Amino acid sequence: MARILLTIRYDGTAYHGWQVQPNAVTVQQVMQDAVERITGVRSGLTGCSRTDAGVHARMFCCAMDSETPLRGEKLCAALNAVLPRDVAVTEAREVEEAFHPRYDAKGKRYVYQILNARQRDPFLEGYAWHIKYPLDTALMDRAAKDLLGTHDFAALCASGSSVEDTVRTVSHAAVERQGDLVLFSVEADGFLYNMVRIMAGTLVDMASGRIAPDAFPSVLESGDRHLAGQTAPACGLFLQAVRY
Amino acid sequence: MARILLTIRYDGTAYHGWQVQPNAVTVQQVMQDAVERITGVRSGLTGCSRTDAGVHARMFCCAMDSETPLRGEKLCAALNAVLPRDVAVTEAREVEEAFHPRYDAKGKRYVYQILNARQRDPFLEGYAWHIKYPLDTALMDRAAKDLLGTHDFAALCASGSSVEDTVRTVSHAAVERQGDLVLFSVEADGFLYNMVRIMAGTLVDMASGRIAPDAFPSVLESGDRHLAGQTAPACGLFLQAVRY
Repeated sequence: MARILLTIRYDGTAYHGWQVQPNAVTVQQVMQDAVERITGVRSGLTGCSRTDAGVHARMFCCAMDSETPLRGEKLCAALNAVLPRDVAVTEAREVEEAFHPRYDAKGKRYVYQILNARQRDPFLEGYAWHIKYPLDTALMDRAAKDLLGTHDFAALCASGSSVEDTVRTVSHAAVERQGDLVLFSVEADGFLYNMVRIMAGTLVDMASGRIAPDAFPSVLESGDRHLAGQTAPACGLFLQAVRY
Repeated sequence: MARILLTIRYDGTAYHGWQVQPNAVTVQQVMQDAVERITGVRSGLTGCSRTDAGVHARMFCCAMDSETPLRGEKLCAALNAVLPRDVAVTEAREVEEAFHPRYDAKGKRYVYQILNARQRDPFLEGYAWHIKYPLDTALMDRAAKDLLGTHDFAALCASGSSVEDTVRTVSHAAVERQGDLVLFSVEADGFLYNMVRIMAGTLVDMASGRIAPDAFPSVLESGDRHLAGQTAPACGLFLQAVRY
């Protein structure tokens, strides 16, 4: 028996997030189905995070305990041959028995994509939040810098979340424009439920004048979700990297 | 009555190319349906080129004669509201009565996308030709330079094509790598049927050693389609720009 860390990427459009749930197709389920098909044994897979329905991952890590003799490229190819086209394994490597994809992650980076143009873009359909009025990305970038450092992020967490410790450390936060795309990227040691989507929604509310652009410090201090902005739609969110 | 030039972009996956044909859905048809829905009148649309089934367009131009009072952003928005999500109008402007999107085009640029990686990429599914062995892009770029200039491109044209004049002038031809993506871009005053896909397929055959990397001059001179390489799949091809 060996513990194997799989690095995967997936287009989350068709999935109800990572975690197995009744009456909905999830990425964890199709991954476990694929592992069972190539090894003959159903193994549980432990993911690096839960992702919401419709959220994408350019890099997501999950671990399994398996007796398969397959390793590396061969294991990737075998899984990719049976996985649906919107999920792919990019790397497979053996890790220590005690390795945990979630607890051992030192940091994660998310990117939130906004299509900031008057008209739709067929190639970004399902991969970006479409905002038609021009966004001041310099204002958004300055505001994002207030997220840097160690804070209690309770105000930027979906209400009803049951996490006890809402303190996280943000090591990178930036907004940049690439043509019609506005990209908000943020890296932290961990994220609360809906945290990136609420950050992105609040930054947009700051650009549109609904929230003062210097409000993040007071919003964080209040711990009050109602003082933050809207929750940006899931389709614009990409888990970009996991660091161990 | 005014002649209006529409700039559109579309994900060609679901379409049998631009041109209306019986028993198949085409981009021209859905565009004409949209124009009819917003103006109440069915107008013919003239395109800047035929594109094959499955080929994409980041920029495609078509013209219509219409009595609609809508112009610019308003016309774009009205059409985008009724078009399917994989087709969008990005610009609409009035042109002279005699303007022809195909004959007046001074040049067109295509980009052919190759995913050059061992494993699949869910985000490039339907948008790239997947080649698993490593491609020598320096070799491909040098070979592509032989396409520059004015040549008879009959050897790089699908056999059975009825075009009489097969002489075209290529003003740009390059192959570059961007991570796992290999991009072949080519600009010319016009293109023959399947010309870019045969160019891309031949460049790949040169990288894999099936065709000598310096073969383009002799292949062009021969005029023999059989001396060129394979036709690359449609899904990797993007009409990138039309220049007037």
